Amino acid sequence: MRPAGQLDVRRHNSALLLAAVTANPGCSRAGLAAMTGLAKATVSSLVDHLVAGGLVAETGPVERTGRGRTGTGLALSATGPHGVGVAVGVDHVTACLVDPLGGVRARRVRSGDNRGRAPEQVLAVVTRVVRSLAGQGVPVGGVGVAVPGLVRGGVLLSAPNLDWSEVDIALDVGVPVTVANEANAAALAELRPDGPRDYVLVSGEVGVGAGIVRDGALLTGVHGFAGELGHLCVDPTGPRCGCGARGCLETYAGTAALPTRQAAANGDPEALSALESAGTRLGQALSGLVNLLDIPTIVLGGDHARLAPWLFGPLRAELARRVIGARWSPPTVVASTLGREAAALGVARAAVDHIRADPDSYLRGAGQAL
Amino acid sequence: MRPAGQLDVRRHNSALLLAAVTANPGCSRAGLAAMTGLAKATVSSLVDHLVAGGLVAETGPVERTGRGRTGTGLALSATGPHGVGVAVGVDHVTACLVDPLGGVRARRVRSGDNRGRAPEQVLAVVTRVVRSLAGQGVPVGGVGVAVPGLVRGGVLLSAPNLDWSEVDIALDVGVPVTVANEANAAALAELRPDGPRDYVLVSGEVGVGAGIVRDGALLTGVHGFAGELGHLCVDPTGPRCGCGARGCLETYAGTAALPTRQAAANGDPEALSALESAGTRLGQALSGLVNLLDIPTIVLGGDHARLAPWLFGPLRAELARRVIGARWSPPTVVASTLGREAAALGVARAAVDHIRADPDSYLRGAGQAL
Repeated sequence: MRPAGQLDVRRHNSALLLAAVTANPGCSRAGLAAMTGLAKATVSSLVDHLVAGGLVAETGPVERTGRGRTGTGLALSATGPHGVGVAVGVDHVTACLVDPLGGVRARRVRSGDNRGRAPEQVLAVVTRVVRSLAGQGVPVGGVGVAVPGLVRGGVLLSAPNLDWSEVDIALDVGVPVTVANEANAAALAELRPDGPRDYVLVSGEVGVGAGIVRDGALLTGVHGFAGELGHLCVDPTGPRCGCGARGCLETYAGTAALPTRQAAANGDPEALSALESAGTRLGQALSGLVNLLDIPTIVLGGDHARLAPWLFGPLRAELARRVIGARWSPPTVVASTLGREAAALGVARAAVDHIRADPDSYLRGAGQAL
Repeated sequence: MRPAGQLDVRRHNSALLLAAVTANPGCSRAGLAAMTGLAKATVSSLVDHLVAGGLVAETGPVERTGRGRTGTGLALSATGPHGVGVAVGVDHVTACLVDPLGGVRARRVRSGDNRGRAPEQVLAVVTRVVRSLAGQGVPVGGVGVAVPGLVRGGVLLSAPNLDWSEVDIALDVGVPVTVANEANAAALAELRPDGPRDYVLVSGEVGVGAGIVRDGALLTGVHGFAGELGHLCVDPTGPRCGCGARGCLETYAGTAALPTRQAAANGDPEALSALESAGTRLGQALSGLVNLLDIPTIVLGGDHARLAPWLFGPLRAELARRVIGARWSPPTVVASTLGREAAALGVARAAVDHIRADPDSYLRGAGQAL
């Protein structure tokens, strides 16, 4: 409960103004003063600093509303600090460069199985990809790395499907590096200003994970380990999972259990039977999730998005049968449209969150940017 | 982002001071001014109001620290507004009167099966119990009712084990009535100032529910339906549940599936086998919950607390086998010590939360109290 110092106040107000500009593109300094309750002189001084630092752009004159002079429109600068996101998958490395408005400016995909490879080898590929994307002539404010496993701090504690454990994701790239779980990153990519604020993103890859978003924020749990949907047990006598236990959802609905889209489209009976089973087991597990969390909006990602036409039926039937609140709040299931890029996109955005949260500190250390 | 009005400021500061007094019994007005950053005159005026209204008591002189006169110690008044909590169980109505410090001052238990009875009949019993507890010569600031089902607003939408649906829990008792899910209420009863802030309370009654507490607050979901642990499917080919689906946890670990404590203590083989099964299925479902939420502290309540010595073994074995983060954060399981009273106690406390949140409004309408 100590009083805020001058520097704290300045940092807080800079972040407040950057958020207001982001949410209200085209607003003027006078409009910002009215929105935030800050004095006009304070707004002008801080906005000038954000413009000089390249975070905010002046977009031209705006019409006067009421008394006062014509103002200058402001918007988030599209040439401000970009984020680089890299997703290390079991069988690919996917990366993208994202501008401050969230748009993808460049992408890289390196296919190839990472299971047999040492972490250092794969991290060397990641570093090369980051340097390549960072060399596009725009400032880079942060790098994010999404990994298919449990993350604490910058360390990948365990990724059974890569057979990696306790890998420090330290990249020598000169800007802050954010490490996130792959499903959490993919969930962040689904957040849109006018979209739902409460949903569960199911990441159907070799492993199955979930990113749980409540009121626009990731639900990460006490240590950041939340979302391990793939290890919900759907049948205690089921097949052995990579984690050592029996009957985990992943053994029914992970990539290894799923047919190709082509086999499904051709009506191959074995493919259709596998999809029926995967959809039913997904529905069983997701009914449990919705019953526990009361977040009844589900977005299928990864392989589950590609195979959604075959999964929807059995999945929705289980939800209708098992979700206790379905009568008052019917669950909805949709397929993500982001494709393989989701995790890279989400972690690229997360990698520049520190700038949005504290633009003043970023600008004081701006020389650090790649 | 509008500026706060004078009344808002007064309400906010009154709540701030009441919280500070609650957390620091024995503090003085000068101490409060130092803690909150409010002016001494403001503190004195607001505290005088809280004392006059019976929310805060003066406890006598406190030693001077540093310069200044001797102050008067302040504490939450034990004779301030009490809460009445009533839990409507499948086979009991349990109620208690709770003082502002959280202590139980009186209790009532009415045993008897509520399954065959009309809601109006049971609510008439609830009203009589509330009036009886409210007639103890202390002010009552709120009444809470805990029910074993989905709640929205003041309506019990569905309680399959009572065979009730869409029951408006409107009691004519003259004070605000709070309606809560039974497991959520029991979870709130476990919150202690120096206890854990992240845990899952499992309420093992005829139905099995969970109250999920994260950072000291209930996780209720989008519509308040969260925590329906009993309907996690632990075996899709399992027995039919009251909800209509197959293999819900409740069919293995609800009261109907459990032996008496005496049969277990006597080593009855059937009883021990049922407990082994219940503990294993509980462990399977709770592993899923911990994997999803990363809240690795579990408190067993109700029948599960009474039978905990027999459930702990198989339950902990499943957690050790199935929780992905167990190596870095081993789950803990303990038994609640609150007994059958937990839900009534929790909802009694919740019933007076509105006073803690806004004491100024309560005092302006204090004539309303029972």
